[in-house]
Amino acid sequence: MANPSLLILAGDGIGPEVMAEVKKIIGWLGAKRGVTFDVTEDLVGGCAYDAHGTPLHDDTMAKAMEVDAVLLGAVGGPKYDNLDFSVKPERGLLRLRKEMDLFSNLRPAQCFDALADFSSLKKEVVAGLDIVIVRELTSGVYFGEPRGIFPDNEGGRFGVNTQRYTTDEIRRVARSAFELAKRRNNKVCSMEKANVMESGILWREEVQWVHDNEYPEVELTHMYADNGAMQLVRWPKQFDVIVTDNLFGDLLSDCAAMLTGSLGMLPSASLGAPMANGRPRAMYEPVHGSAPDIAGQGKANPIACILSLAMALRYSYDMGDEATRVEKAVEKVLADGVRTADLMGPEGGSPVSTSGMGDAIVTAL
Amino acid sequence: MANPSLLILAGDGIGPEVMAEVKKIIGWLGAKRGVTFDVTEDLVGGCAYDAHGTPLHDDTMAKAMEVDAVLLGAVGGPKYDNLDFSVKPERGLLRLRKEMDLFSNLRPAQCFDALADFSSLKKEVVAGLDIVIVRELTSGVYFGEPRGIFPDNEGGRFGVNTQRYTTDEIRRVARSAFELAKRRNNKVCSMEKANVMESGILWREEVQWVHDNEYPEVELTHMYADNGAMQLVRWPKQFDVIVTDNLFGDLLSDCAAMLTGSLGMLPSASLGAPMANGRPRAMYEPVHGSAPDIAGQGKANPIACILSLAMALRYSYDMGDEATRVEKAVEKVLADGVRTADLMGPEGGSPVSTSGMGDAIVTAL
Ligand SMILES: CC(C)[C@H](C(=O)O)[C@@H](O)C(=O)O
Ligand SMILES: CC(C)[C@H](C(=O)O)[C@@H](O)C(=O)O
Repeated sequence: MANPSLLILAGDGIGPEVMAEVKKIIGWLGAKRGVTFDVTEDLVGGCAYDAHGTPLHDDTMAKAMEVDAVLLGAVGGPKYDNLDFSVKPERGLLRLRKEMDLFSNLRPAQCFDALADFSSLKKEVVAGLDIVIVRELTSGVYFGEPRGIFPDNEGGRFGVNTQRYTTDEIRRVARSAFELAKRRNNKVCSMEKANVMESGILWREEVQWVHDNEYPEVELTHMYADNGAMQLVRWPKQFDVIVTDNLFGDLLSDCAAMLTGSLGMLPSASLGAPMANGRPRAMYEPVHGSAPDIAGQGKANPIACILSLAMALRYSYDMGDEATRVEKAVEKVLADGVRTADLMGPEGGSPVSTSGMGDAIVTAL
Repeated sequence: MANPSLLILAGDGIGPEVMAEVKKIIGWLGAKRGVTFDVTEDLVGGCAYDAHGTPLHDDTMAKAMEVDAVLLGAVGGPKYDNLDFSVKPERGLLRLRKEMDLFSNLRPAQCFDALADFSSLKKEVVAGLDIVIVRELTSGVYFGEPRGIFPDNEGGRFGVNTQRYTTDEIRRVARSAFELAKRRNNKVCSMEKANVMESGILWREEVQWVHDNEYPEVELTHMYADNGAMQLVRWPKQFDVIVTDNLFGDLLSDCAAMLTGSLGMLPSASLGAPMANGRPRAMYEPVHGSAPDIAGQGKANPIACILSLAMALRYSYDMGDEATRVEKAVEKVLADGVRTADLMGPEGGSPVSTSGMGDAIVTAL
């Protein structure tokens, strides 16, 4: 049987640095656990633009469609801020999401015990927090047409984007949220602005339909997204699984991630339909961005990217045990007090570098 | 000269209860300060639907266009959840905003010293917080066409909404943000998703244009709205004035309000173009909603609505001194430990009722 395949797209900013640590874990899996991956590497985002004049080369896109999973670092940076919209680093990421049809984006917001003090929220509000935002990732205002900037009749301009959702798009992401809830605490909260947007009414109706017809045993509630943002800040533990659209999911998941104080720690999975091997088409990436301000300084925390690999082990390679092993090693290292700069409290201490953290995790393994 | 005119639309849920306390303040202004308002009252939201089959009667709309200012309580409730979209309580509010052309919605997020412990955030993160979100209120996805739910060709449906902004719409709300910043700490942060939405690119360019051509002395930064949601949670004091569109403003201002722990305390102003009297067309309302769960129980906190009246005194009636007097009375009452149920800590104590709070404020006046 062929080795499991993985396409690594390290991207921009701190992407390559954190990915270097992931490769150490992959090396360890090969050397000590006899799990050899066929790893290919390629460019995405600003670095792809620098090399090819496009943030995602067609060859890279084709590779992404052939592998068992993609692991992405981060894209973007100030250097690319003034590029034309069509070749911005983000377009590379969005093309991967769209063409791989990764409609279900799982974004856990989990507060690590060792780090509960890091949150800007009170410890009792976030300690033990473990919720997942399921964000629709291939539709909505991110991809709707018409879109663009146009001249108007009075010498000005107008900008247009279109929020568009179909029955099927809503139902499939709702199903993935209900499936996830069944493996967790059996509770889904769906968020939209049905009081203002018709697309939100359709969203609410279709999520309810999937619930009533396919998952009546899961608890389902609906909440307006503005209230959702409030409730996440007020008492996030009231939630288990939240399902929402692409744009609301973008804001709400970042808000939820920041609550935990563990931004440098949070992985994510973007999943599509099953492939020939029965596993979903998948891309994994840290929740954090490319952090250009600290790029190249060895300050970045590689844990989010390493935990993204762990998610890949679990969801794409059927290696749940190995995934748990990696996660336990991360916990151990944290419990031992090993900290990158982002995890240092005001009382200070001496942080380890990006590679210091990677090495500590390999040692713990 | 005619008396200053005020249209009171108490609305649904706790709206009428909190408005009853506002009327006590208006009574005090008349009796003790010789300021007599021509007060008219009318219906908006669910109660208007119950009476007239529409959430805002044309006569009420006409009255709103004639007065110096409108004071609104809150709209909506579960009773109206299944109404057709076109007659939902919210449509009444949205029609007022649109026809009065109230493009600039000022939403302060201010943490009251006496209440800093109420926030779910750490005290040092929110104590002394005083920022304002300027939300565009008459355009964007709230009003853009096409919109609706339509059948597709495969027996399913699709929902559509349109985000649309013109040069002029962006420039005028940007100006109001820069003007506000000049009276505060001279700092504006504009938020959009220019990395994903063309309407966000136009937003960024036009805000920058207004800055460069009209307010070069104000500090302007730009931030993606998802990062904005994060930064509000991480360290809200980094901001002074935030300007953003209608939908992002809806989520971000609720998030910011909740940070303060003072949701029952926060007023807002929605301002339009100057009227014949030189003052802006204006509607004032508390940031909180209709809270149907506690409606009719005398538990609601009337302070947000009373402070909304204070904003009206300042912005619509040129009575800054009276406004300050009301605000100081509220501060005094809080400092004296008078608390409605929403302001009770876990250690308990005996809360005053809605009218108890109103009476205490009148006494302090
Ligand atoms: C980089 C950007 C295009 C992206 C998004 O808006 O989806 C990011 O914010 C995210 O959440 O993954
Ligand atoms: C009630 C609703 C229509 C309204 C909005 O979405 O604007 C509310 O959430 C607000 O923020 O004033």
